[in-house]
Amino acid sequence: MNKTLELTGIIGYPITPFSDVTGAVNILQLQGIIDGLISSGSSAIAALGSAGEGAYLNTAEWEETALATIHHVADRVPVIIGISELTTPDAVARAVFADKAGVKAVMVSPMSYYKLSEDEIFAHYQAISDAISVPIMVYNNPSTSGIDMSPEFMCKMVNSITNVTMVKESSGDIRRMHQLHMLSNGTLPFYNGCNYLALEAINAGAKGWCSAAPILIGDLPKQLFDSIKSGDNNKARNLFYQQITFLEFIVKQGLAASIKVGLKLQGTDVGSPRLPLKDLPAREHVALRRILVDLGRFN
Amino acid sequence: MNKTLELTGIIGYPITPFSDVTGAVNILQLQGIIDGLISSGSSAIAALGSAGEGAYLNTAEWEETALATIHHVADRVPVIIGISELTTPDAVARAVFADKAGVKAVMVSPMSYYKLSEDEIFAHYQAISDAISVPIMVYNNPSTSGIDMSPEFMCKMVNSITNVTMVKESSGDIRRMHQLHMLSNGTLPFYNGCNYLALEAINAGAKGWCSAAPILIGDLPKQLFDSIKSGDNNKARNLFYQQITFLEFIVKQGLAASIKVGLKLQGTDVGSPRLPLKDLPAREHVALRRILVDLGRFN
Amino acid sequence: MNKTLELTGIIGYPITPFSDVTGAVNILQLQGIIDGLISSGSSAIAALGSAGEGAYLNTAEWEETALATIHHVADRVPVIIGISELTTPDAVARAVFADKAGVKAVMVSPMSYYKLSEDEIFAHYQAISDAISVPIMVYNNPSTSGIDMSPEFMCKMVNSITNVTMVKESSGDIRRMHQLHMLSNGTLPFYNGCNYLALEAINAGAKGWCSAAPILIGDLPKQLFDSIKSGDNNKARNLFYQQITFLEFIVKQGLAASIKVGLKLQGTDVGSPRLPLKDLPAREHVALRRILVDLGRFN
Amino acid sequence: MNKTLELTGIIGYPITPFSDVTGAVNILQLQGIIDGLISSGSSAIAALGSAGEGAYLNTAEWEETALATIHHVADRVPVIIGISELTTPDAVARAVFADKAGVKAVMVSPMSYYKLSEDEIFAHYQAISDAISVPIMVYNNPSTSGIDMSPEFMCKMVNSITNVTMVKESSGDIRRMHQLHMLSNGTLPFYNGCNYLALEAINAGAKGWCSAAPILIGDLPKQLFDSIKSGDNNKARNLFYQQITFLEFIVKQGLAASIKVGLKLQGTDVGSPRLPLKDLPAREHVALRRILVDLGRFN
Repeated sequence: MNKTLELTGIIGYPITPFSDVTGAVNILQLQGIIDGLISSGSSAIAALGSAGEGAYLNTAEWEETALATIHHVADRVPVIIGISELTTPDAVARAVFADKAGVKAVMVSPMSYYKLSEDEIFAHYQAISDAISVPIMVYNNPSTSGIDMSPEFMCKMVNSITNVTMVKESSGDIRRMHQLHMLSNGTLPFYNGCNYLALEAINAGAKGWCSAAPILIGDLPKQLFDSIKSGDNNKARNLFYQQITFLEFIVKQGLAASIKVGLKLQGTDVGSPRLPLKDLPAREHVALRRILVDLGRFN
Repeated sequence: MNKTLELTGIIGYPITPFSDVTGAVNILQLQGIIDGLISSGSSAIAALGSAGEGAYLNTAEWEETALATIHHVADRVPVIIGISELTTPDAVARAVFADKAGVKAVMVSPMSYYKLSEDEIFAHYQAISDAISVPIMVYNNPSTSGIDMSPEFMCKMVNSITNVTMVKESSGDIRRMHQLHMLSNGTLPFYNGCNYLALEAINAGAKGWCSAAPILIGDLPKQLFDSIKSGDNNKARNLFYQQITFLEFIVKQGLAASIKVGLKLQGTDVGSPRLPLKDLPAREHVALRRILVDLGRFN
Repeated sequence: MNKTLELTGIIGYPITPFSDVTGAVNILQLQGIIDGLISSGSSAIAALGSAGEGAYLNTAEWEETALATIHHVADRVPVIIGISELTTPDAVARAVFADKAGVKAVMVSPMSYYKLSEDEIFAHYQAISDAISVPIMVYNNPSTSGIDMSPEFMCKMVNSITNVTMVKESSGDIRRMHQLHMLSNGTLPFYNGCNYLALEAINAGAKGWCSAAPILIGDLPKQLFDSIKSGDNNKARNLFYQQITFLEFIVKQGLAASIKVGLKLQGTDVGSPRLPLKDLPAREHVALRRILVDLGRFN
Repeated sequence: MNKTLELTGIIGYPITPFSDVTGAVNILQLQGIIDGLISSGSSAIAALGSAGEGAYLNTAEWEETALATIHHVADRVPVIIGISELTTPDAVARAVFADKAGVKAVMVSPMSYYKLSEDEIFAHYQAISDAISVPIMVYNNPSTSGIDMSPEFMCKMVNSITNVTMVKESSGDIRRMHQLHMLSNGTLPFYNGCNYLALEAINAGAKGWCSAAPILIGDLPKQLFDSIKSGDNNKARNLFYQQITFLEFIVKQGLAASIKVGLKLQGTDVGSPRLPLKDLPAREHVALRRILVDLGRFN
């Protein structure tokens, strides 16, 4: 195993474009989105996360999208693939596929119908780790997965399971990052998955910021990241407050649906999210348009 | 559509037995469980609900289990089938299958990765209703589905969507039942899906009690139901407090896992739940054994 | 100590009328309210609880109101006095005063600025118990006191502190009553303090229902209590749903403010609650009038 | 009114020492604590806040403490006095007293028994503002006051009530500070009242940090504040993580009780907090001692 993958900066999350006619994944559009993320400074590409509607794709679509991402990125930056499956066998199967296809890491979120005990979650990650040879980023997002993993538990998995090496924290509670830092004595790489806490997370020591925001607002997230790292705190604060309304919007309205609306407003129709997810209501199109105009990202 | 299905009393929920060797559904054991539910007084059989791990089965397994249930019940009582799919097309497909197979109703829970708006949930139920000809029981269980539907919204669906005719409330908040009663002027049939609120729900006017409990404790739930209906409140209270520890246990430990342990304790090994769900830890086997001994249900 | 006080049925809670001119307690009006509560079937009078704005009165006013209540009730029914003081010395002082004045019990709620540990709460009750010779009803109402006492902890106090003999549960969680019953093997007298859970609480075994509702709706609460006790569950359910909108209203809008508006609507101006509490807004006067008309309690 | 008081940096909060024999406020010790706060870099002194047990003092004690603070500070830095009274008349009386005694501002927290509506809270602040001539800092601390004021509402009060000019936010939710900044277009001075969010709050633009921490750990909070302002983010992060365990401890264990234990460990016995508050249990003495040793603040 390679515990040495070092990710930092902006980790870009593509959405998954669908044809409104056939419902199929539109690979050509996906390639354009990936290129945009890389050109706006993403230091890695993480496909099939929340923004990518990974949980809503069937196996064939998921595999097609994973392969297309890996091939198009073509080692310009590392590729990570997200896995959110309800059963352990299904999660293992997807992780094995991704590993063989050449990803540099997988990002794994447990999913719940019944609430899972820590023993059950641990065994889930262990089974995935045993089946692959690339690092696993533990993804804690209780609002989508229905499971909230404590910093203590995630550190335990990092310490105990060979391929578990990183944490993406999306609970929205900045204290979790304090705890991840303290519990690991600063050695655990953790990443911000909660867009509207970017200023806080990076100041608290997050190695990177996982975000689909650059799809619509380009290098503004990277500018924020860089200004914190360079100690220009006034600039960082200004950049943060400049984009906070946008960041709050895409989290509140749903990443996939809101990024897709934004792309349409910016001239690219990538289709609607998959049912039961729907396009945002018209008033939110208007709201997002105003936000993008204010950010100079609407032409 | 048949809005006239009248369910009352105990609606029995089978678990789904798996072979520990092959992982396949054990149909013979399922038949025995169904027979036990009917003989202990269930007035309907609801397969593939939470207790039945419906969300964890692949399509072939789910269809096999649905068919086996319908055929074995053989119209002794009505059969209901549970549907908990993440996408609308998948939910519609299962509902259509169940309808054609001869169920008397489907019980539908929305599922979330992204939180769903009421418009999205409404469209989900509408699409299912449009595709079938049997009644739909709306199943509100935020702890498993990640979605909490308000009484107002569920009443709106009952009033607006042809086949939506019943509500199963499992949120654990008895006031929801008050509201369902008040909002519908007493006309909406609602069912208790929260075992430890059975006394309260039936007194508040629930038409029935949806439960897997009779698999392990036989007719005790029906005795409770009947004693409330007959006005013997002292007996009802005694029966309720007699079984409350058991009811709290199976909800807290998970219906599928705890019923499976109980069956093993009573002599039938129906396998473990599907990974990542695991068998209960040994201390909970001991606890459940003690509870069953106290109830005279362990030999 | 007298652990033998046996309270059951409706325990009536007077509000405290103030002169809008001087702000003084209007004893004459208080006497009328007490008489109304007794004539509508209250089996005890509990002054200076939440409804009585006990926490808002200065010492002189509180003592005057306590004395006036005891003297006017004149042993027709037992008198209980509520105590909600931030410091232990102040609580002890009021309890001693009430004891000497002749109450049959005191009802004590801890109050918080800093959250209190169980050790701190225990010592608070112990100090009060040590100073008096009448029973103490533990009053758990986290929404007013800022402190939530678990059933386990309250049972511990009942078992350990001489004068602590009863519990009034107002948390709004019916399961607390199940736990009080189970933990005490049915021996602990507990009382319902959450108006909108009356049907559930009494069915769960509450000895009585603590309420200011009879001030406005007369014997409807007692009818509900009696019909449950006599096993007429259809009548009980009808009575409950008849008054539920009223019960929800007075809890949501605040007992003191809403009962005072209701009295004004029924013809008796008892003044406004004490600042910062204000009279309800006009729209709520209209809403309450409609509710009282529907109940036949507005002329 | 003077809307021009400009507070920034560390605002030091004294605790209130009590004689364990008489229970009286120990003015001599209070003076020492004030001197320590000033010498460790506090740019203002705020007496009788949460740390100062202001809510637990009777009027005479409160007035004595307020006067002693003002006289001892002797204009070395501005003095602020905290007010947390349940009734509006009592809050006005204390504010008037403080104003006449020469404070530069009052910090006002609403208190609840009944939950207060925004209209009621607004009128409470309006009444205080009308009675005094110094600025009011709105203090939002739902965990002590039982009332949670939204950023929108607090901004409305700042815009509408003459003397309301500042906000101290202690809810523990960093997004409130984002909102205060955005709603006021960066013009509203807000202060951090949640010790463990200091790094985040100052980066988000808080003008100052209200804290009793310097009583025990001297200028470490000021060093943190200054390093953020100077853009030395690595130093800031190191300073923050150095003191985070201490900051979490004093919030979790209660400011008054834990600072008093710390002072005792450092050699000054300032007595216990006022009952029902108790001294911390022995194990927490041990924990705090270890924390102080690690910080080099235990000799």
